[in-house]
Amino acid sequence: MTKTVLCYGDSLTWGYDAETIGRHEYKNRWPSVLQAALGSEARIIAEGLNGRTTAFDDHLADCDRNGARVLPTILQTHAPLDLVILLLGTNDMKPVVAGSAFAACQGISRLVRLIRNHAWPFEFDGPEILIVAPPAICATGNVPFAASFPGGIEESAKLATLYRDLADELGCGFFDGNSVAKTTPIDGIHLDAENTRALGRGLESIVRMMLGI
Amino acid sequence: MTKTVLCYGDSLTWGYDAETIGRHEYKNRWPSVLQAALGSEARIIAEGLNGRTTAFDDHLADCDRNGARVLPTILQTHAPLDLVILLLGTNDMKPVVAGSAFAACQGISRLVRLIRNHAWPFEFDGPEILIVAPPAICATGNVPFAASFPGGIEESAKLATLYRDLADELGCGFFDGNSVAKTTPIDGIHLDAENTRALGRGLESIVRMMLGI
Amino acid sequence: MTKTVLCYGDSLTWGYDAETIGRHEYKNRWPSVLQAALGSEARIIAEGLNGRTTAFDDHLADCDRNGARVLPTILQTHAPLDLVILLLGTNDMKPVVAGSAFAACQGISRLVRLIRNHAWPFEFDGPEILIVAPPAICATGNVPFAASFPGGIEESAKLATLYRDLADELGCGFFDGNSVAKTTPIDGIHLDAENTRALGRGLESIVRMMLGI
Amino acid sequence: MTKTVLCYGDSLTWGYDAETIGRHEYKNRWPSVLQAALGSEARIIAEGLNGRTTAFDDHLADCDRNGARVLPTILQTHAPLDLVILLLGTNDMKPVVAGSAFAACQGISRLVRLIRNHAWPFEFDGPEILIVAPPAICATGNVPFAASFPGGIEESAKLATLYRDLADELGCGFFDGNSVAKTTPIDGIHLDAENTRALGRGLESIVRMMLGI
Amino acid sequence: MTKTVLCYGDSLTWGYDAETIGRHEYKNRWPSVLQAALGSEARIIAEGLNGRTTAFDDHLADCDRNGARVLPTILQTHAPLDLVILLLGTNDMKPVVAGSAFAACQGISRLVRLIRNHAWPFEFDGPEILIVAPPAICATGNVPFAASFPGGIEESAKLATLYRDLADELGCGFFDGNSVAKTTPIDGIHLDAENTRALGRGLESIVRMMLGI
Amino acid sequence: MTKTVLCYGDSLTWGYDAETIGRHEYKNRWPSVLQAALGSEARIIAEGLNGRTTAFDDHLADCDRNGARVLPTILQTHAPLDLVILLLGTNDMKPVVAGSAFAACQGISRLVRLIRNHAWPFEFDGPEILIVAPPAICATGNVPFAASFPGGIEESAKLATLYRDLADELGCGFFDGNSVAKTTPIDGIHLDAENTRALGRGLESIVRMMLGI
Repeated sequence: MTKTVLCYGDSLTWGYDAETIGRHEYKNRWPSVLQAALGSEARIIAEGLNGRTTAFDDHLADCDRNGARVLPTILQTHAPLDLVILLLGTNDMKPVVAGSAFAACQGISRLVRLIRNHAWPFEFDGPEILIVAPPAICATGNVPFAASFPGGIEESAKLATLYRDLADELGCGFFDGNSVAKTTPIDGIHLDAENTRALGRGLESIVRMMLGI
Repeated sequence: MTKTVLCYGDSLTWGYDAETIGRHEYKNRWPSVLQAALGSEARIIAEGLNGRTTAFDDHLADCDRNGARVLPTILQTHAPLDLVILLLGTNDMKPVVAGSAFAACQGISRLVRLIRNHAWPFEFDGPEILIVAPPAICATGNVPFAASFPGGIEESAKLATLYRDLADELGCGFFDGNSVAKTTPIDGIHLDAENTRALGRGLESIVRMMLGI
Repeated sequence: MTKTVLCYGDSLTWGYDAETIGRHEYKNRWPSVLQAALGSEARIIAEGLNGRTTAFDDHLADCDRNGARVLPTILQTHAPLDLVILLLGTNDMKPVVAGSAFAACQGISRLVRLIRNHAWPFEFDGPEILIVAPPAICATGNVPFAASFPGGIEESAKLATLYRDLADELGCGFFDGNSVAKTTPIDGIHLDAENTRALGRGLESIVRMMLGI
Repeated sequence: MTKTVLCYGDSLTWGYDAETIGRHEYKNRWPSVLQAALGSEARIIAEGLNGRTTAFDDHLADCDRNGARVLPTILQTHAPLDLVILLLGTNDMKPVVAGSAFAACQGISRLVRLIRNHAWPFEFDGPEILIVAPPAICATGNVPFAASFPGGIEESAKLATLYRDLADELGCGFFDGNSVAKTTPIDGIHLDAENTRALGRGLESIVRMMLGI
Repeated sequence: MTKTVLCYGDSLTWGYDAETIGRHEYKNRWPSVLQAALGSEARIIAEGLNGRTTAFDDHLADCDRNGARVLPTILQTHAPLDLVILLLGTNDMKPVVAGSAFAACQGISRLVRLIRNHAWPFEFDGPEILIVAPPAICATGNVPFAASFPGGIEESAKLATLYRDLADELGCGFFDGNSVAKTTPIDGIHLDAENTRALGRGLESIVRMMLGI
Repeated sequence: MTKTVLCYGDSLTWGYDAETIGRHEYKNRWPSVLQAALGSEARIIAEGLNGRTTAFDDHLADCDRNGARVLPTILQTHAPLDLVILLLGTNDMKPVVAGSAFAACQGISRLVRLIRNHAWPFEFDGPEILIVAPPAICATGNVPFAASFPGGIEESAKLATLYRDLADELGCGFFDGNSVAKTTPIDGIHLDAENTRALGRGLESIVRMMLGI
């Protein structure tokens, strides 16, 4: 039977293109690449929001960027789910959001517990959870982005280790985005087309394994 | 170029199946039928949430059912959009939500203004809007559903006329769900598989026209 | 010393003009007329918001219409105050808001307690409070307004008596707007220029008395 | 081992005394009577808030009356729990809150699901749940209370049957408050000292059974 | 025709007097000075709230200090507007609020977008926007204030340059408060009577230019 | 007459046991020890919530940790009160919450004003307030706790002095938890059984004095 996978993320999932200051073409976004790889065996649902945090408020946008406040509504919308992929944490590196890898890790932990304790309709089974560490922030000459993420290079470099330990502790899958992709020096945060495609390809194997397909 | 269409709705869009007390198969839900009809010319995004209202709070669920509070986040997630289809109003018929067709119509008006005034990222153009009147509530022997919607048969029967006038006034497209589908007497509210498919087929023509495809 | 008076109200205070579907000229709005009458003895601050309720949510607008949620911020903004005039209740007549004069009266009571218990900065003294009953809703041929306020004619006619008793009980001043003004049949709710001016003139005497000027 | 019981309720649990317009003496409130009856075998925690609803907003007070919004915080505060007694629904009878027994029943259902899905700390087991139907509203000459609860006599009389069915459906215990207590005609809503004591005595047996003591 | 100008600010607009720990006389507050300078050509509306931030929460007060949450209600209250003057950012310097000039600048950007995307009633035109940099924080012997704003002297000194660039980018007017006024060493934050008057006088020229009067 | 005392706190009041990663036995928690000491002269109500802050949001839990948002509901629940003991501030030391003793002190000040301005039912008198400084955070080998509280040892050491001055300024009682108890090196934050008992014994004297018993 076709599996359903929710990709819950931020601009890396949305497909922010730092070069054109726009959105990557549909086919280049990692959820689309993953969909193409899995074909009819799975249905990939992309819910990426620019600026989304794990579990912290950010009132600088005309929408709700707190991942923990919005997640239950998204889970209910797409239930039943077989797998939820969480790719979040980069925006937590902003000091006005949280500013530390440790806080992002606590936010991911909160999201996992929200999924585990969700009141699924019709007593649907809950999904497996795959935690993905975002590729670390790199140095950039882009002044506004650099100013948004002071200390972000050091802190974001810690995410993979912290997320891996958390995934072990909570019985979730883990994938290190740094193993296949790196952020663009254009703004230090985002993935260019090649790297977002690489992330989709990189995820195929563990997603297949977790879905048993 | 491929067009992007957001289907923002409630259980009629989610695919609530009153017969099995579960979810309609993917292929039977109206957004899927519409996707199949339009093929590669459009990408259909389904955001249907059981119990969603137009613009009213309902604290009886573990998620945010107020369509107006959640919409900006969903718009931002799926931007840029060419068309938003609004299929809401049935849940507004509950007295604890609003209890009148007039209120539902005001709620739709609020959603249209939210879309029109949305702060689109990257100065994307805003989408066209298609207002769909949900098929009217019918008589049912299902006690809890009947009790949830006292007066709902009469009030929901007024929605099509009110929505049509509103769409004219606001320069939106309009489609009357009653013209192609009717609700099931099993619970008086939902669409069986045949009727949700019929809704998808019925929408094809106006969606093509509005998208210019 | 110059006295400071806050006029906290809805569209009757804002100056909604049903004839032009716009805003009354500044000089015709009742707070301006009151200002002109009192001259340099008082400073009149107008805070009228279309659709404001006493203490109930209304999510149909792009602002916060719940008078109780916004009031503390307005009190803090304009402190120290000598008098607060509350002219609210008409929007409570909408069934989606509250739909009864009794509920509006409870809302006014809530506002009075908010003022009485407000944490004034610098230990400023709290103000006197004048409760004004809005002129009763009248019959209208305006379909949307009539539909917004089913039962409103009967219920709004009860406001003056209920507010008078409440004012007595809570030690507030009371003024019956019906004694000097009546609503326009154009929409059944609002005041034409002559009537909003009359309200301002009518209030002068009690305001002078309460301010001791 | 000593059992822990949370009594989550409204003014009937707080101990509102309609005769003195104050609070019943500690020893007369039903949780105290229950505590005295069970002695050292159980620890009874009383969390009764005047005006608390099951799951609906009421902005007329300087606190949060929505039982569903506050419950998780109270559960976390008093965990681990062996039993939660829910005695709510009377305030739902107010039209500005919900106005129907059916809505109150949905609210109780929401609270049960909140308890069942709560993220208990330290993986504590969740508690048993006992749903108590409040004694029905009776006729009163008290004008403000009668005005707050139009239709309340008829609607509140339906609560026991609805709650009993819900308890069966959800696997909760059920106790009908009407079997041992009745409301006072002084305000039609509250329990006099004798009746609140009777409620505590009446609950002893089922609470012992559910706690296995 | 008389122009309408909204002054949206914090304690600098409210008129906090560090010497008397009270409020500056009406005539000395900068909006009053501006009103006096412009006479009947403009109507100046002062909405200054002690502690207001640009777009960040601060739960330490009995009102809503988040400028972005309250602004839409204030815009709706005073519409139609010809000009909005934003004088905010000092409170963003508190570490518990945001603690950086960069964050304040993002907050101002959020406010500008809120104004530009506001759903104006009656299709009123939106106003021009003038961004004013608050005079920089200075050294003070006042311990509580110094403790509230660690790093504030350095950060607030950056506001003028950042705001000027932002104003250019967004097509807003800009005025540097430092060019005419400086903060008092009594608390390091506020303006004495002479300096708040100087701010009002200093703004006259650019306000006239932006209003075309 | 029996006095009523509310203990409003965090995990130190709840009774978090760092050794067993569970909850201290009832008899060992400080409110229970205080109850035992005072006997029938006072009724001690324990409202301790793990992670509660003074007045700051923390979205990492499935409940509301902002002490200022929840307090009014708790006050209303347990009114009338003779004394409120505030033992909070440790969680404010987390950088994602506030990260400074100064901020915690402002939060306590906010809570005191909430109590002083509370709209007590039935015109009950407000309670006395006792501010307790939590024992300072100590060094620990517990990595997650150390990571949650960087700088916490230094900042928490300042709480006693700041709280004492605040208590003097606001006319509250003060007790320094450090005078009788110290935190465990197991996690650097919590009290072992002996130390939480010591806190209860230590508080007896000042509580008796404040209650006049």
